[in-house]
Amino acid sequence: MKLLRVGTVGAERPALLDESGALRDLSGLVPDVDGALLADDAALARVREAASAGTLPVLEASGLRTGAPVARIGKVVCIGLNYHDHARETGAPVPEEPIIFMKAPDTVVGPDDTVLVPRGSRKTDWEVELAVVIGRTARYLETDEEALASVAGYAVAHDVSEREFQIERGGQWDKGKNCETFNPLGPWLVTADEIPDPQALTLRLWVNGEPKQDGTTAEQIFPVAEVVRYVSQFMTLYPGDVINTGTPAGVAMGQPEPKPYLRPGDVVELEIEGLGRQRQELKQG
Amino acid sequence: MKLLRVGTVGAERPALLDESGALRDLSGLVPDVDGALLADDAALARVREAASAGTLPVLEASGLRTGAPVARIGKVVCIGLNYHDHARETGAPVPEEPIIFMKAPDTVVGPDDTVLVPRGSRKTDWEVELAVVIGRTARYLETDEEALASVAGYAVAHDVSEREFQIERGGQWDKGKNCETFNPLGPWLVTADEIPDPQALTLRLWVNGEPKQDGTTAEQIFPVAEVVRYVSQFMTLYPGDVINTGTPAGVAMGQPEPKPYLRPGDVVELEIEGLGRQRQELKQG
Repeated sequence: MKLLRVGTVGAERPALLDESGALRDLSGLVPDVDGALLADDAALARVREAASAGTLPVLEASGLRTGAPVARIGKVVCIGLNYHDHARETGAPVPEEPIIFMKAPDTVVGPDDTVLVPRGSRKTDWEVELAVVIGRTARYLETDEEALASVAGYAVAHDVSEREFQIERGGQWDKGKNCETFNPLGPWLVTADEIPDPQALTLRLWVNGEPKQDGTTAEQIFPVAEVVRYVSQFMTLYPGDVINTGTPAGVAMGQPEPKPYLRPGDVVELEIEGLGRQRQELKQG
Repeated sequence: MKLLRVGTVGAERPALLDESGALRDLSGLVPDVDGALLADDAALARVREAASAGTLPVLEASGLRTGAPVARIGKVVCIGLNYHDHARETGAPVPEEPIIFMKAPDTVVGPDDTVLVPRGSRKTDWEVELAVVIGRTARYLETDEEALASVAGYAVAHDVSEREFQIERGGQWDKGKNCETFNPLGPWLVTADEIPDPQALTLRLWVNGEPKQDGTTAEQIFPVAEVVRYVSQFMTLYPGDVINTGTPAGVAMGQPEPKPYLRPGDVVELEIEGLGRQRQELKQG
């Protein structure tokens, strides 16, 4: 299923994109798309049943904003340098184990919402990423099977990054990763049953129509199952948590000088095969 | 005022510790102590008025668990190496600007709740810290006055840290800062009007009754106002967000070998002048 949330900021309603591409209203069936729903097999089964019965009310999509597909996200865990080609372009060695950093859930916005270039920023950069959304509490998982069983689904994430704040301002990457609007998510949460192989997805990103990133999750150094299993050794993952699993080559930081960092007025589009497409206009923060 | 939340995990009710030391029930007046309350001057005034009128129902404190004093925390921002004496003991240079890292809100537990030593941990360490709780949205603040005006109050935080995960496992500190139960908070949120000078507070911590940390916020490299102002340049702070402002000297990592890292069965007690006291027993995670 493709689950989403539509409506104005803070007043989104749960919806479903059906197999014909029509938008269906879920608000009569479930209160929202959030960790509580994703952990509730019975509620998900009711949604699935109503979807295939074709009884859900149709929503008029035109003019309707799409929000992030998950409400009340508990945390956003990010994996750094997780693609062979991206590690090469940044000149970093291939990590021996996953690098973990964090984004605050309040950085998450809808897939087509405005992204703000922070004041004083000279190095705002793009990163298309496969986001994993957790559906079952994960704590000290031992196997890849347990790890994949804790995944509710997948979504497109834009891990917007300010490289000067991240790298040149003393210490930890989080300083360049938590600016307002820095994590567009969606449009959809695609349930895991529809993504038989998360290591065979194409990721693409364009800036002002020019192709910048064109990668595949086959290049991930640590695949999704390993990432989830690994993270669960260091922190407990809860339903509704999100993991951004890293970006392939092609970010501005990896290009020759003058590096083409984002500026107000730029338009970024990104997509992952089967998971939908995002489009953001950059504005001054 | 001293605001707190009492009751079983997930079912805490809002309460107030009055000037005589009696626990008063706030649940008839406000739904909870959270960002919404802290941003609502009228609701806070009603609480203050009821407190001085002495009309709030008394709660029987004995046997009642104390939860974290703020519900629905949006993010926990942490400042690293923010005390001159702690920078010296770790051998790190004094940072030129604040080091920022993040803890997930789900690491926050009550002040006397069990702290779990992560599986595989050999270097679980303590850190008593002054926590700042935000009451007004803070974005690109320019002055210390604006910064202090955005502070709702203060609390004791225990920024529990796993040093091997933090420093020796590839990359970013967050890996050793986000383990389950790693941020006891409370007992109280003391409103800012009762803390005229946040740079004149004594912080103390004991392990199994032995004094380990005995510091003062006068040793902070970046004082509270500067920290809040600085963080607001990189991320937007919202009511109910928490900033852990760093720890003074005396952590296990700073001591001679064999360093006395925490083990299951250890008891940590910590307090900050005027902000109350915590006590945690360590157990195996």
